Amino acid sequence: MKIHNFSAGPCILPETVLNEAAQAVSNFNNLGLSLVEISHRSPDFVAVMEEARSLVKELLHLPDRFDVLFLQGGASLGFLTAAYNFLPEGGRAAYIDSGTWANKAVKEAKHLGGIDVIGSSKASNYNEIPDLGAVPNGSAYLHYTSNNTIFGTQFSGTPQAEAPLIADMSSDIFSREFDANPYHLIYAGAQKNMGPAGTVMYAFDTEAVGKTGRSIPSYLDLQVHASKDSMFNTPSVFPVYVTMLTLRWIKSMGGVKAMEERNARKAALIYGEIDRNDLFEGHAAGNSRSTMNATFRLKEDTKAAAFDTLWKEAGISGIKGHRSVGGYRASMYNALPEESVQVLVDAMQELERTA
Amino acid sequence: MKIHNFSAGPCILPETVLNEAAQAVSNFNNLGLSLVEISHRSPDFVAVMEEARSLVKELLHLPDRFDVLFLQGGASLGFLTAAYNFLPEGGRAAYIDSGTWANKAVKEAKHLGGIDVIGSSKASNYNEIPDLGAVPNGSAYLHYTSNNTIFGTQFSGTPQAEAPLIADMSSDIFSREFDANPYHLIYAGAQKNMGPAGTVMYAFDTEAVGKTGRSIPSYLDLQVHASKDSMFNTPSVFPVYVTMLTLRWIKSMGGVKAMEERNARKAALIYGEIDRNDLFEGHAAGNSRSTMNATFRLKEDTKAAAFDTLWKEAGISGIKGHRSVGGYRASMYNALPEESVQVLVDAMQELERTA
Repeated sequence: MKIHNFSAGPCILPETVLNEAAQAVSNFNNLGLSLVEISHRSPDFVAVMEEARSLVKELLHLPDRFDVLFLQGGASLGFLTAAYNFLPEGGRAAYIDSGTWANKAVKEAKHLGGIDVIGSSKASNYNEIPDLGAVPNGSAYLHYTSNNTIFGTQFSGTPQAEAPLIADMSSDIFSREFDANPYHLIYAGAQKNMGPAGTVMYAFDTEAVGKTGRSIPSYLDLQVHASKDSMFNTPSVFPVYVTMLTLRWIKSMGGVKAMEERNARKAALIYGEIDRNDLFEGHAAGNSRSTMNATFRLKEDTKAAAFDTLWKEAGISGIKGHRSVGGYRASMYNALPEESVQVLVDAMQELERTA
Repeated sequence: MKIHNFSAGPCILPETVLNEAAQAVSNFNNLGLSLVEISHRSPDFVAVMEEARSLVKELLHLPDRFDVLFLQGGASLGFLTAAYNFLPEGGRAAYIDSGTWANKAVKEAKHLGGIDVIGSSKASNYNEIPDLGAVPNGSAYLHYTSNNTIFGTQFSGTPQAEAPLIADMSSDIFSREFDANPYHLIYAGAQKNMGPAGTVMYAFDTEAVGKTGRSIPSYLDLQVHASKDSMFNTPSVFPVYVTMLTLRWIKSMGGVKAMEERNARKAALIYGEIDRNDLFEGHAAGNSRSTMNATFRLKEDTKAAAFDTLWKEAGISGIKGHRSVGGYRASMYNALPEESVQVLVDAMQELERTA
């Protein structure tokens, strides 16, 4: 039976990518060696890293002044790296608290300067993107989390602010087009739309970095990594390779614009059913709904057993909601086919007919 | 033709491990899903992480008070993590400068305190393990790099010191037995004897950690990771899995003691030939020679073309020396068969007969 993988991340990747990745683990580029047992400085792997960096620039239409790196530590280390590289010694920055990860970003940045939270939806269990106060004068940047995986909320577009932007786009990078010009830094863990767990992408404005006056530990210094073409130390070879394959797949499918259109169709399908079907209700407020993660629940818990049986029988995997929200969460990243969303909608309708 | 992979890292892994890893990328545990598209919190992956942590404790005979983590960022981030967790605010620590990576460890630790270098072989291009001065009174720890990959030198055993030890064992972990009792921390990038690039192992004394008085950023705080069973954030799933498989392989081969015996035989074979064959000379001083990386060169550069043809024809890969040393470097990590060293020795002897 085909499995419909709605996992929140690590998550579904294109089948062709996984096949090629498995082959590379056995024998990469017909070298007679595995991808993971050759030097990261060999021409074969340097080509992988360079293609991955270049595809990010191309697919996101990054301005020429941007550089792209693939590092380690996930967005969790990214919270610290962002502040180290863009929050000046003794300076302040503005943050938006739109979910668990946004809140963690605030916590880490506080190690390095004064943080002003200009909007929070914590009081409503993060069921919406908060209204934003003004960014205080002199803020080095405004940091936000573009999509909140746990709560199923997403900024509908780029926040308007006087300050430069920094965004953690871990769970919606490459899912929709945006203009990178207002950003100093975009970072994203790979394990949703980009690839497997184990690498994190940094795209940053080379003209804005390096102005904090800080002495930055080497691994946290974006300029150190950039000066070594993202090979300051041994990169996470397999995750970077599979990310490169996934970026190739995005390009072959028509790029980010095509992903955005497909994601809009999938989101319309699931939210249409959540709104139509009286047995269900959504968690996220209508204007904050995420195209990546749809959070919803049964109005009556007594129907849970019947629904769980239905979706399991349909081959659906990974839709249990996060413990902070409960209910269900259907994660619909780029690689999830529209067919899988239809199968879920069918199960919801079958429950309506039979429960 | 069989390839004899002497790469310095990432490097050769056991063939059975690579086969199983390729299978898991296609279909893991017969789930119908790839290893890299399931949740890291799924029972199937939690079991992988727990087995990897447990195998480290077993294979290294770690005292019960030790905990084991698999994090990201390589030893390069480990240099900073070591100091954050064990160098008290306002304190000092002693370091041994035995090579490029040891030197980088000093540089990163200086962000956090006073560093006393009690021995350096930099003046002789790191061709030996330096003589050690006394560890100053009040040093929080003595840090050293057990094996110097670039220069082919290795501590013959555990340094004797009044202070607790911290060691970067990236390039000889699991290659020989040692007593972990004198250590506060042992850390090692996976990509030599342990697995593919993309994860770094930390084994640390839980009774010694957490006493620095520092406010530590979350990702750099070993106690934060330990409190979440090495799942504070999404781990590097594939590298951890392949590391677990490699640790299983070490155990199946007879454990670290069996590795040590095999590595000693391989080292005896190559160093015996370097010493016997008048065309070659070693870089590392005799009593500092590494069992992992043998560095050597031709006494006459004019024979290089002939030798390079011979070893390439024999299927040897990855023996070009690091640019800091020149010549050749034969890396003989755990997974390298004795047969491969014999093939290299044969090529050296063939050169002697024909050049």
